Amino acid sequence: MKREFDLLSLGEIMLRLSPPDNERITRGDAFSKQAGGAELNSATGAAMLGLRCGIISKLPDNDLGVYIKNRIRLCGVSDDYLVYDDDPDARLGVYYYESGAYPRKPRIVYDRKNTSVNKLRVEDLDPHVFEAARCFHTSGITLALSPELRETTIEMIKRFKEKGTLISFDVNFRGNLWTGAEAKECIERILPYVDIFFCSESTARLTFLKEGDLKSIMKQFTEEYPISIVASTQRVVHSPKRHSFGSVIYSAKDDTYYEEPPYADIEVIDRIGSGDAYISGVLYGLLAHPDEYQKALEYGNAVSALKNTIPGDLLSTDLKEIEGIVKEHKSDGMISEMDR
Amino acid sequence: MKREFDLLSLGEIMLRLSPPDNERITRGDAFSKQAGGAELNSATGAAMLGLRCGIISKLPDNDLGVYIKNRIRLCGVSDDYLVYDDDPDARLGVYYYESGAYPRKPRIVYDRKNTSVNKLRVEDLDPHVFEAARCFHTSGITLALSPELRETTIEMIKRFKEKGTLISFDVNFRGNLWTGAEAKECIERILPYVDIFFCSESTARLTFLKEGDLKSIMKQFTEEYPISIVASTQRVVHSPKRHSFGSVIYSAKDDTYYEEPPYADIEVIDRIGSGDAYISGVLYGLLAHPDEYQKALEYGNAVSALKNTIPGDLLSTDLKEIEGIVKEHKSDGMISEMDR
Amino acid sequence: MKREFDLLSLGEIMLRLSPPDNERITRGDAFSKQAGGAELNSATGAAMLGLRCGIISKLPDNDLGVYIKNRIRLCGVSDDYLVYDDDPDARLGVYYYESGAYPRKPRIVYDRKNTSVNKLRVEDLDPHVFEAARCFHTSGITLALSPELRETTIEMIKRFKEKGTLISFDVNFRGNLWTGAEAKECIERILPYVDIFFCSESTARLTFLKEGDLKSIMKQFTEEYPISIVASTQRVVHSPKRHSFGSVIYSAKDDTYYEEPPYADIEVIDRIGSGDAYISGVLYGLLAHPDEYQKALEYGNAVSALKNTIPGDLLSTDLKEIEGIVKEHKSDGMISEMDR
Amino acid sequence: MKREFDLLSLGEIMLRLSPPDNERITRGDAFSKQAGGAELNSATGAAMLGLRCGIISKLPDNDLGVYIKNRIRLCGVSDDYLVYDDDPDARLGVYYYESGAYPRKPRIVYDRKNTSVNKLRVEDLDPHVFEAARCFHTSGITLALSPELRETTIEMIKRFKEKGTLISFDVNFRGNLWTGAEAKECIERILPYVDIFFCSESTARLTFLKEGDLKSIMKQFTEEYPISIVASTQRVVHSPKRHSFGSVIYSAKDDTYYEEPPYADIEVIDRIGSGDAYISGVLYGLLAHPDEYQKALEYGNAVSALKNTIPGDLLSTDLKEIEGIVKEHKSDGMISEMDR
Amino acid sequence: MKREFDLLSLGEIMLRLSPPDNERITRGDAFSKQAGGAELNSATGAAMLGLRCGIISKLPDNDLGVYIKNRIRLCGVSDDYLVYDDDPDARLGVYYYESGAYPRKPRIVYDRKNTSVNKLRVEDLDPHVFEAARCFHTSGITLALSPELRETTIEMIKRFKEKGTLISFDVNFRGNLWTGAEAKECIERILPYVDIFFCSESTARLTFLKEGDLKSIMKQFTEEYPISIVASTQRVVHSPKRHSFGSVIYSAKDDTYYEEPPYADIEVIDRIGSGDAYISGVLYGLLAHPDEYQKALEYGNAVSALKNTIPGDLLSTDLKEIEGIVKEHKSDGMISEMDR
Amino acid sequence: MKREFDLLSLGEIMLRLSPPDNERITRGDAFSKQAGGAELNSATGAAMLGLRCGIISKLPDNDLGVYIKNRIRLCGVSDDYLVYDDDPDARLGVYYYESGAYPRKPRIVYDRKNTSVNKLRVEDLDPHVFEAARCFHTSGITLALSPELRETTIEMIKRFKEKGTLISFDVNFRGNLWTGAEAKECIERILPYVDIFFCSESTARLTFLKEGDLKSIMKQFTEEYPISIVASTQRVVHSPKRHSFGSVIYSAKDDTYYEEPPYADIEVIDRIGSGDAYISGVLYGLLAHPDEYQKALEYGNAVSALKNTIPGDLLSTDLKEIEGIVKEHKSDGMISEMDR
Repeated sequence: MKREFDLLSLGEIMLRLSPPDNERITRGDAFSKQAGGAELNSATGAAMLGLRCGIISKLPDNDLGVYIKNRIRLCGVSDDYLVYDDDPDARLGVYYYESGAYPRKPRIVYDRKNTSVNKLRVEDLDPHVFEAARCFHTSGITLALSPELRETTIEMIKRFKEKGTLISFDVNFRGNLWTGAEAKECIERILPYVDIFFCSESTARLTFLKEGDLKSIMKQFTEEYPISIVASTQRVVHSPKRHSFGSVIYSAKDDTYYEEPPYADIEVIDRIGSGDAYISGVLYGLLAHPDEYQKALEYGNAVSALKNTIPGDLLSTDLKEIEGIVKEHKSDGMISEMDR
Repeated sequence: MKREFDLLSLGEIMLRLSPPDNERITRGDAFSKQAGGAELNSATGAAMLGLRCGIISKLPDNDLGVYIKNRIRLCGVSDDYLVYDDDPDARLGVYYYESGAYPRKPRIVYDRKNTSVNKLRVEDLDPHVFEAARCFHTSGITLALSPELRETTIEMIKRFKEKGTLISFDVNFRGNLWTGAEAKECIERILPYVDIFFCSESTARLTFLKEGDLKSIMKQFTEEYPISIVASTQRVVHSPKRHSFGSVIYSAKDDTYYEEPPYADIEVIDRIGSGDAYISGVLYGLLAHPDEYQKALEYGNAVSALKNTIPGDLLSTDLKEIEGIVKEHKSDGMISEMDR
Repeated sequence: MKREFDLLSLGEIMLRLSPPDNERITRGDAFSKQAGGAELNSATGAAMLGLRCGIISKLPDNDLGVYIKNRIRLCGVSDDYLVYDDDPDARLGVYYYESGAYPRKPRIVYDRKNTSVNKLRVEDLDPHVFEAARCFHTSGITLALSPELRETTIEMIKRFKEKGTLISFDVNFRGNLWTGAEAKECIERILPYVDIFFCSESTARLTFLKEGDLKSIMKQFTEEYPISIVASTQRVVHSPKRHSFGSVIYSAKDDTYYEEPPYADIEVIDRIGSGDAYISGVLYGLLAHPDEYQKALEYGNAVSALKNTIPGDLLSTDLKEIEGIVKEHKSDGMISEMDR
Repeated sequence: MKREFDLLSLGEIMLRLSPPDNERITRGDAFSKQAGGAELNSATGAAMLGLRCGIISKLPDNDLGVYIKNRIRLCGVSDDYLVYDDDPDARLGVYYYESGAYPRKPRIVYDRKNTSVNKLRVEDLDPHVFEAARCFHTSGITLALSPELRETTIEMIKRFKEKGTLISFDVNFRGNLWTGAEAKECIERILPYVDIFFCSESTARLTFLKEGDLKSIMKQFTEEYPISIVASTQRVVHSPKRHSFGSVIYSAKDDTYYEEPPYADIEVIDRIGSGDAYISGVLYGLLAHPDEYQKALEYGNAVSALKNTIPGDLLSTDLKEIEGIVKEHKSDGMISEMDR
Repeated sequence: MKREFDLLSLGEIMLRLSPPDNERITRGDAFSKQAGGAELNSATGAAMLGLRCGIISKLPDNDLGVYIKNRIRLCGVSDDYLVYDDDPDARLGVYYYESGAYPRKPRIVYDRKNTSVNKLRVEDLDPHVFEAARCFHTSGITLALSPELRETTIEMIKRFKEKGTLISFDVNFRGNLWTGAEAKECIERILPYVDIFFCSESTARLTFLKEGDLKSIMKQFTEEYPISIVASTQRVVHSPKRHSFGSVIYSAKDDTYYEEPPYADIEVIDRIGSGDAYISGVLYGLLAHPDEYQKALEYGNAVSALKNTIPGDLLSTDLKEIEGIVKEHKSDGMISEMDR
Repeated sequence: MKREFDLLSLGEIMLRLSPPDNERITRGDAFSKQAGGAELNSATGAAMLGLRCGIISKLPDNDLGVYIKNRIRLCGVSDDYLVYDDDPDARLGVYYYESGAYPRKPRIVYDRKNTSVNKLRVEDLDPHVFEAARCFHTSGITLALSPELRETTIEMIKRFKEKGTLISFDVNFRGNLWTGAEAKECIERILPYVDIFFCSESTARLTFLKEGDLKSIMKQFTEEYPISIVASTQRVVHSPKRHSFGSVIYSAKDDTYYEEPPYADIEVIDRIGSGDAYISGVLYGLLAHPDEYQKALEYGNAVSALKNTIPGDLLSTDLKEIEGIVKEHKSDGMISEMDR
């Protein structure tokens, strides 16, 4: 299938502000500024690996909107489907993040109500968008932001699906946006359209009320809905500065589970976006190497592990670096410290 | 009149974010973070000169609210009348400011809709507040923010007035918040309660449709309303880095205009808040040295001139420094470069 | 007992200067500037948890004194009992701190001779201070700084005690200020007045020449002096970036030892002030929850553990965060990475 | 003429490193990093005003090349015609710039020998490039860098010309790259192909050995060669922080000189690239508003004046800001300080 | 006269701490750190122009002393005659400087009591030092710091003089160190030994109670004492960011006054040390070009003018840059903006 | 043997640029700037321990060359044998380094072709240099940079040897500069002159094709060539932030191997230059304490371990700190966290 884009994602893009040098949000004189947002993060990562990616969102028509557009371009993601909000009330969501160190937890303050993305309507987009991509991705965050954006999102999913686009969906449950019951009800409306489903074990249990072991839960989703691929990540948070990360992928077509040993003792610099980075890697694998599910799993795990070491939401890497990490992760032998 | 505070002001407090080193909002990696807001700026300046000041506002009950509270305390302004908004949607206003250099103009992006201050209600405050201060100050910005806050503000003005509090009001007209006609209609509702009225010449003409020379306009206000003091600032913007600043005060009681030569060729580092700083100085003069209107004028001009040289919204000075500036401004003779 | 303050502490407040980014004191172009000092650190922590706290000290009457005053206010500690030294020789103590990484040790340079605090006299304070607080705290550092300050301190302890104030004392032995023998002799003069006694095991052995196991040593102090509470911290320094921390509290009244498992593998960002933070937590517990010694221990350990992760001397936290850490430390189950 | 790009420019792109805070290159611990280069600067400015622009260059295939590519994208300039050099010796040019303040002059160190751009060959590019743009721009710097790049450049000029592309050329004489005589000889080889010719008065005199007044010199060029437009800038350097800037454009077709009063007392923050920015503005005017030469002049002057106030080589602006500056420059009346 | 050093200076070296970005000492989170001190500043400047210079001082034997030593070496000044103070009370002087902008004055806080330099004794130095240099320089600051250092200094002046060393002395009167009467009495004790005398007009009048015009005052000094050269600087402070600077030199030998037009409208970045830089330039001129007094004057003025544009106390330049400034100052013609 | 220097080293000195705060080279706005280069690193470390050291190299005669010279002086290394290249093409090598965190590897970009050091010729130096030092050190990097520099280096080795200088050589194999076979052939030409030979086990096997256990390999070198000392480091890279480090020294004279337990779990801040730091320590030991090989080993290991915790290439330490680390490494007992 030849289309202009490999991947289009839909979601809110925010300004992220973080105090430098382990300082707290409540003190100090400076923030570093970055762009971020779950679906942008995923598109960015996939673009860095080589997919042609774009982001669908609505930004305020002011200097901050320009800032975000600039960052998106910087990541090699197309801004063709960014829509601008010239309402005097147009606003960009902002979130403030401070990192942790045991026993201090990371802290986050969201300021994302009434943001321009909530005014995004299907009519804002050129209808050709629905046949412009091989795959469309969004997450539960987009559904949760507002009733209006929820309906826009569901309508877009349907239109993309109609045009033969693969639908990728990440539950990405956030308790501060909606309740588990609300999420379950809404997401069950869209699961009939989903091809690639990202859902962690704990979300499957707590939100979808699934029981049994992880593998049987993954399979259940494909039995209840026409889902082809279910991917579940497994993160162990030893401390804010030390995580381990692995995942399982289940392919319904060949009824097979794909796994590898987790990345242990990741030296975490910034964990935000590492779940989104996993999606980047898996979608890259699925779209660039169809049917090689083990590869998709390996890309997903490596990209996510790497993201933990990069400051900001947005990944910065390329395929060569990721393939080096995958290769080293699979090797037993001596490994160079660096090339020089 | 012995009261707990000399001055209470009411207004929105915002997070201010500015790119360092002449960078643009749309580029770069860092913002310096500061607190600001017209009425806080005025209270802060007055507190630094020695008045007992407090601020009435509503802040979100999150890390950003704590940040703002910390900054207010740092300035010696009481946070006794800060109210917290524990609504999950609670938000702090943010504005982004970049400075200019001829021919580049300063730029500003406001993100202040639906902020917690708009939910402030008279009932949020302990009723003793209305007799806690010698003077109450607010500005047209507070009236303009939302219909709800407007009604809260007008009701507070009435209650403070009832308890014998001096009412100070700065028009501070902002075309991006309301039209001149809206401002005129609303402000004319409160002028019957105002004792000290700050209004620039251009605002008097464009918003209140006054005609004649500045002095006659100033007097007209005191003839139409029971206003005691009218103060008008005169800023000349030679370039973003070079301003001149002076003012005229009219006292209805003794039917006299107070003036002095302006501060010429101020080396501007950050002009935001210099108008609010003028109010600090005038209110300090009026409250600390009643009936010495020339002194109030001199304090106002010196504090405003100094503010232009201090980064951020918030002044940082003390009475000794201001009196040194006043003295030097009035002197003809040789002046030391610095003390050492 | 209703008094204006819960806690007043007495001690030197210093300017702390640290090279950023692991740089050495001997190189580089910048210092980050902070305020600190053992007794201020303790007052600050207690204030953040909710006690009404103040600090007694003497500062130079210059821009640096103003800087320190501003920082104290920022922490919510009262500056009512700060005294200013307008002597042309008035000076603020300074210390320079660089952090370590195995096998590089942290380094510290003190410049605290002839500082204004040494000129503090009992007569500098309004005599009402002695009945203004429920608890008075100071440390061996204050006693060690100079013979003059030592006499002032001992006299203050007596006056506070006379007025029914609880006396809290931390040995905080510093070999660069005095010898063990000098410390022993001096501290034994004040132990008859002390209610709450903080002393580490090693100090008890090396300075007070105690023998036996830790618990018996702790009890000995209460047998020899009318001390109610003895608290001993146990820090294990695995490396400059990894510590473990726990403590034991002995209550003479109920002849009981209180303990809990230590915080293991704390990810240390800045260990300075973590001992003082322990005192904050314990005093908060004792004053806010009288007779709940286990709670005091838990607060102390959690506050100290957290402090290790906060840059600068001064804690930045609130009761909610500390209670979350205590709860998680006591739990066995699954723990969220962060709330969102 | 409908073509994919409005403007393609050819030239070297360099890493620019500058000491912050007026520090010298020879001291201090930090450089700010930026991208720059005369022809990129011009393309960037034109892209910001709305032209579809691209840059032709050769970059090393390493992390620095990626950095430069990222910056180019960030500016909205196409990287379609960037070629990568995977030779192990591939290198990016670097220049070090420190700004001045009277009587300290700005200083610059170039390190641009043997850089990858010198290996650029006509064969490196898809031959469609020569009919992809309405206008092609390069400068004397590109000709001067090396004999090899000179031949590549001349060949490209011919190929673009053959395909009906407008040829724009800026003499941009740099005495550290070649002598005046070398420049004259080489540039006279290409003038037969040039449509739009940028040459300052002093260069016309010293390098091309022209005599007479500026206007007659400008006309001479159009008489000797088939040049349509000659543009000459006039910069007055009052001090490193204060410049004035104006220009004259001569159109051969209507034999008319276009002028306006210069921008006086520009508050210079970073003058580098302000000449290139002039070209951005003029080319934008010529391509977006054909035959409106006065407009081209006004855009050129305004863009150049603004560039002096933006840190780094690369402009950051948009059409709206520039049109505001033009309008204000032409107005006599009262001007707002900023919009709010 | 062949000696190991051209110039040895004696004086206190301090740590200088300045808030970045126009911040105040009383706010913010960072200081930039630098070394400075009048006599070091003079030695540093002379070393940069090519003299072999050293500094005589006493530093604490701790990390701060090492920092200072490192900075001195960085400037090419010999540390052979630095003496270290290993007393536990050893301390380095510190001063805090914030820059101004009209009408904000620069501010300075000194913390230089009881510093190690005050313990410097003649016996600390190898006696060969007194014949190691062609010229010895110190200033009134060194005499003023303490009675002990005053005696050391006077003794050193005598010993250097005995060995045929030229004695250079700058009055450098500081009202916060001693009174005019104290200064007069002390300095008159050393004037019999002085060859080169730096004294501003105002100091000559206010401290030495001289009358008449500047030139006659300068001559009086050479008539009363065996002084060969008197140099007086003339600084006009238009504002903290704009100064003009010139000087007059009187040579007794040829009874001639040397002058040139002042440097007007210097764009001041950091004026501290610009008086000391003047001395660098004059001493360089006198020692490198004996008897060319006009040259000494030109070097002095240029070096001082340049220093105003360099951040920190310490000059950073070389002979080539200074000669370029001198040449340009004397020229009437066109001047390049920079070389490239 | 009394000579002016204890150690002269020969090698390229580069500007090192690193993104701060874990940022990538490909993003962000700033680099920290430092000087570095293997042989300078070794000389610097040895100078800090107390040897009289100098560096032989060729630098461009521009502001960057001055920057490097300044840094060298700052480290206490003599610049007497630095030669300047005033060719307009003179250039300084630059390298860009970003640090890693598992699974992100450190990255490095070199830009060191055609640098001034390659033009260094024996004739550039005063011939007395060859008898000015007790020991001469260089590394395989210097041999690999260019054929011209290789011949210069070999000739210098011979001349130093002739004058009775100890020759120290570190293989320091870099695969991006030459192949193993080229290295072997070239290095075997110089081994007949080498007294102290640094070669890691893996280099011995892969480059010199040695077989057998490490100790027998070390001995083989002394049997084939008149080498006195062979030192081999053993680094274990657990992750980019955690290394262990130890070494073995073999002395041919007493046919003995010297060892100690490695430094385990070094908290790595910047590993660059830690191998060069090892050489500093060993050469210090050999030259300051002849024949005490165990001491040389202990210094080498301690200096290298410490270097991993210091940012930049260049060590910053002194003998006292290193001896403290050695002592603590050898101790079993309780160790103070820091002195205060």
